[in-house]
Amino acid sequence: MIVHFKKDVDSIIVNKFVAQYGAFHFKKKDYVVAITSSSLKEFDLSYDDFISDTFVFNDDIQLASKKYLTKKRSVKLGDIEFGGDSKNIIMMAGPCSVESKEQIEESSLMLKSLNLKILRAGCYKPRTSPYSFQGLGLEGLKLLDKMRSKHDLKIITEVRDSSHIEDIIEYSDIIQIGAKAMYDQGILKRCSKINKPILLKRGFGTTLQEFVQAAEFILSGGNENVILCERGIRTFETKTRFTLDLCGVAYLKEHTNLPVVLDPTHAMGHAYGIPDLTRACVAMGIDGLLIETHINPKVAKSDASQQLDHEEFKKMFNSLHPIAKAIGKEII
Amino acid sequence: MIVHFKKDVDSIIVNKFVAQYGAFHFKKKDYVVAITSSSLKEFDLSYDDFISDTFVFNDDIQLASKKYLTKKRSVKLGDIEFGGDSKNIIMMAGPCSVESKEQIEESSLMLKSLNLKILRAGCYKPRTSPYSFQGLGLEGLKLLDKMRSKHDLKIITEVRDSSHIEDIIEYSDIIQIGAKAMYDQGILKRCSKINKPILLKRGFGTTLQEFVQAAEFILSGGNENVILCERGIRTFETKTRFTLDLCGVAYLKEHTNLPVVLDPTHAMGHAYGIPDLTRACVAMGIDGLLIETHINPKVAKSDASQQLDHEEFKKMFNSLHPIAKAIGKEII
Amino acid sequence: MIVHFKKDVDSIIVNKFVAQYGAFHFKKKDYVVAITSSSLKEFDLSYDDFISDTFVFNDDIQLASKKYLTKKRSVKLGDIEFGGDSKNIIMMAGPCSVESKEQIEESSLMLKSLNLKILRAGCYKPRTSPYSFQGLGLEGLKLLDKMRSKHDLKIITEVRDSSHIEDIIEYSDIIQIGAKAMYDQGILKRCSKINKPILLKRGFGTTLQEFVQAAEFILSGGNENVILCERGIRTFETKTRFTLDLCGVAYLKEHTNLPVVLDPTHAMGHAYGIPDLTRACVAMGIDGLLIETHINPKVAKSDASQQLDHEEFKKMFNSLHPIAKAIGKEII
Amino acid sequence: MIVHFKKDVDSIIVNKFVAQYGAFHFKKKDYVVAITSSSLKEFDLSYDDFISDTFVFNDDIQLASKKYLTKKRSVKLGDIEFGGDSKNIIMMAGPCSVESKEQIEESSLMLKSLNLKILRAGCYKPRTSPYSFQGLGLEGLKLLDKMRSKHDLKIITEVRDSSHIEDIIEYSDIIQIGAKAMYDQGILKRCSKINKPILLKRGFGTTLQEFVQAAEFILSGGNENVILCERGIRTFETKTRFTLDLCGVAYLKEHTNLPVVLDPTHAMGHAYGIPDLTRACVAMGIDGLLIETHINPKVAKSDASQQLDHEEFKKMFNSLHPIAKAIGKEII
Repeated sequence: MIVHFKKDVDSIIVNKFVAQYGAFHFKKKDYVVAITSSSLKEFDLSYDDFISDTFVFNDDIQLASKKYLTKKRSVKLGDIEFGGDSKNIIMMAGPCSVESKEQIEESSLMLKSLNLKILRAGCYKPRTSPYSFQGLGLEGLKLLDKMRSKHDLKIITEVRDSSHIEDIIEYSDIIQIGAKAMYDQGILKRCSKINKPILLKRGFGTTLQEFVQAAEFILSGGNENVILCERGIRTFETKTRFTLDLCGVAYLKEHTNLPVVLDPTHAMGHAYGIPDLTRACVAMGIDGLLIETHINPKVAKSDASQQLDHEEFKKMFNSLHPIAKAIGKEII
Repeated sequence: MIVHFKKDVDSIIVNKFVAQYGAFHFKKKDYVVAITSSSLKEFDLSYDDFISDTFVFNDDIQLASKKYLTKKRSVKLGDIEFGGDSKNIIMMAGPCSVESKEQIEESSLMLKSLNLKILRAGCYKPRTSPYSFQGLGLEGLKLLDKMRSKHDLKIITEVRDSSHIEDIIEYSDIIQIGAKAMYDQGILKRCSKINKPILLKRGFGTTLQEFVQAAEFILSGGNENVILCERGIRTFETKTRFTLDLCGVAYLKEHTNLPVVLDPTHAMGHAYGIPDLTRACVAMGIDGLLIETHINPKVAKSDASQQLDHEEFKKMFNSLHPIAKAIGKEII
Repeated sequence: MIVHFKKDVDSIIVNKFVAQYGAFHFKKKDYVVAITSSSLKEFDLSYDDFISDTFVFNDDIQLASKKYLTKKRSVKLGDIEFGGDSKNIIMMAGPCSVESKEQIEESSLMLKSLNLKILRAGCYKPRTSPYSFQGLGLEGLKLLDKMRSKHDLKIITEVRDSSHIEDIIEYSDIIQIGAKAMYDQGILKRCSKINKPILLKRGFGTTLQEFVQAAEFILSGGNENVILCERGIRTFETKTRFTLDLCGVAYLKEHTNLPVVLDPTHAMGHAYGIPDLTRACVAMGIDGLLIETHINPKVAKSDASQQLDHEEFKKMFNSLHPIAKAIGKEII
Repeated sequence: MIVHFKKDVDSIIVNKFVAQYGAFHFKKKDYVVAITSSSLKEFDLSYDDFISDTFVFNDDIQLASKKYLTKKRSVKLGDIEFGGDSKNIIMMAGPCSVESKEQIEESSLMLKSLNLKILRAGCYKPRTSPYSFQGLGLEGLKLLDKMRSKHDLKIITEVRDSSHIEDIIEYSDIIQIGAKAMYDQGILKRCSKINKPILLKRGFGTTLQEFVQAAEFILSGGNENVILCERGIRTFETKTRFTLDLCGVAYLKEHTNLPVVLDPTHAMGHAYGIPDLTRACVAMGIDGLLIETHINPKVAKSDASQQLDHEEFKKMFNSLHPIAKAIGKEII
């Protein structure tokens, strides 16, 4: 259950409610939000005078639900807006991993040439083998920081586990919680206490219910800047790396109030299918894209088979505008 | 292995080859095609003089492979062309089941009003419960036949099992082999011996490899008019009925020479997501669409939750043209 | 809903009910059973006097449900009993395919040496490639028939599709409906009208709900001799061929009244794991086993990697008795 | 590649190798182990004189592979041995969560009454909803610590994320890395630097390859006390919570050298199936079991539906001995 306490409610009242029902709470401009388990359907009458609104739910998708907010939430990063009233499909692109100053510089220049604003690149790679390239770590974050100031780019990069969350918070503009870290409560709870945008990727074995509930961990702590990202689920089909779940995207658009971003690169796992899939994502009317592109994919230290080279990326990027326009959206 | 015997080869030679290697064979205008298991990598030298072309494969996707024919095959139905050099995305629409003369008449009129040419509707429903509506059977086929002559529509309808394949062949213009019948060799082999277009749906538990190998059953018998149809696979996600596998579609486009049609209706299972998904399918650059629409979905005898009503269908249909145009295709 | 009409009910009454509610019906010694969709919760009061028992259900698992019959059904084949009051775990073994007279003779002799009574072997192989060995067909059935008379063995063999169901009915003692044919209503409905035992395998993409509903197709036609067989489902894991679903077996034992047989061979797909898995199946307390064993697996024309040789089979078979005894069962 | 440097090798040589090939290394009594990526197939000849053994692999399952050590590793916890030459199947049991002093005391007494030695109970629950009971945290660990000293029990408890790994290391005898934390490199790498036994659970969306590679993270840091635990994978079947993958267990037994423990409780998700499944696990010949049991499951704060009550647990436990004996094992 979500309740809105009136703006001027005494904090003693709210704290009593929080203690009584094990609730989360945070302040908004015009009211105080308190959230309990969805199993709570009614509360003690003594609170009635202090409460302006009450929302009852069938399950623990509450703050993220269209039943709570019918309008899509807006997540702002400077003058860039995901969702809300905007018509934006925001392209975030870059290499799988930061590998060197030269490589990330090339990526930045390519983005700038297309007037793109957000650079993606990993520094802590969640590889499944200890014997693979694990990323440059803090050194990589510092290279990204240079690109930010030098090229006026925003940075999105991934946190792998709780042990380096503070570094990620310091160096990134959007914090990406990857598919393998999605259940990590150390990360989720820390991210709930800051105000930076959080891009939460769906785990490849994660149901939509669990995915949105993970967003509730962040929302219920008071950080309302959550973006969902579908990146492919694991199915019996192995000709492609994962299976991009656009039916799931349709579900998220219908039932949640959060902006949705798509990552077709990791789903497909092969460069050849990325342009078609990206066009499909755009036609779905989503709020953003995460695409891997590398100056020379053949020598990439991770995800070599699935990264577009810069020419392929540009060609694909140019093909997206008329599709976006056809559905009343704009790629930026 | 596929070999092309020269046009004027003596049939004794071909028959000897067929017997020796357990091959399939059929005649084309300029050569005779013979196909063996892909495990055969070379043949007896004595055949050399009679053979004009040889194609060796790593697995049993042979006739359907881009390695055999780099160009997409053309499947013609009167003056309607799937694939080939055409830019067509062919819309096939209609109700899940034929329910009555009035209902199917309404569907036909709606299609005509949009200048659409192919009516889809089931007569033998492959329901999973014996206690559900099983379709009108032969009576339904006869109603479809009336629509064909009265409204100049082509008919696509589904065969459920081998026991009524002859009726389906007689009454339909495109024979649909459904997801649950896809491994049915009684159907596949019978369809390989006719010339009508066959729309083969992927089973929901079927790998892409098995799916295309099922098409090889039809192709190897000499019927080259095969259209593949992706309609969603079964995954752990149950908020939607199935998961539409667009990564798989990208694979089929890259590796096979067959036209590909998409059925987003059965994948999604809920009307609300169909327009977005259909737009995504169009943006993938596929060759056709199968969409369920019913004059009054609320009273439909099967698949009530997932059929668009006629107004929803028309609105969606109109939104597809600019997307098709954006990728150089045309919806017909 | 299931209703029991009293023994001496006039057939006019039953036929009226059948017509009114679209019911199935068949006769038992002491009553007439009629089954409607589970959506029917009550019937016209005028039938009340003729009806002795009424069973209401939440879904279309009705005749197979423990809510209808709490006791496990008994399926008899001569003096062999599956389920019922017996403590039997019935071992059915033999090669994947009948390949030759000599090969199937060896299999038969091996079974006889262990005092086993049921020979399994396929004649119509549901291969996924047209270029693989497809089985000996009718010739194979006749070889099995010879083994039956010569060695006093019962035969279980698989029907692939409706086109040869009559041959299978004629030559087999237990009709096996394979995983790929499980939705084939031509087969299911034909099998519902005979009295031979039917072993129904779960499709590898089939939910437990759909699986038991397929059994309802047979039961509702009046053939109550249905045995369920779990043989592995398709999951994301590909190191093994399929994933044997023993959680599903626990569900079937708890919720249905049908005997359950296990086929670990097809699930595992590799001979090395079969003995351990077979022991696990026995410890589950199931009613029978289907195991592939071949005189010389290396040269087998199908499923070469997963068949035990005769020595491996015997060794494993001997290890099963103490486990069966530990849970109060007996392997025969 | 794994190489064994001779016992008396100069550390300068080893460090050079480590730097040159990005290798991990640790000391054993008779040699120094260095491990590189499996893509390395040969090394500089200059190292030859210092190296006693070399092992080349096709993929990154190296230290855990039977190709490296053919014998199953032994993991010791005081006088309790998992794997190795022992015939032990070690029963670890207890409630899902520590809820109170009284509750965990009851669990401890029950274990003692059966002469069991290892208490399982969670303090940091990886719940998928923020609005569910999250565990008692450090307070719970302290209660477990009391049970350890008072009842001479060993403790296994789960780490949820890197933020509290030090507390878990301090208070537990076996560190359980749960299914949702299995990719957490903060945890894996920290656990690789201690000597306590680590029970690593397979993620429910994790392939066997990835699962064993996660174990390689721990092994390659020098902690060789790793136990694998299968606990069910996520499939399309939802009548049960997950699908216990015993085919996967057969694979792990054949291809890896690590002890394997089974957790049927989380796989099934319903108490009714646990006894049958546990008996199946024992018959597989595995090295241990993790079973949830609660003094009063109806009021349990987590996993209420799947915990056995103490009477059910005892009855089941007693049924396991004859099965274990039948396969030459012993339950302790």
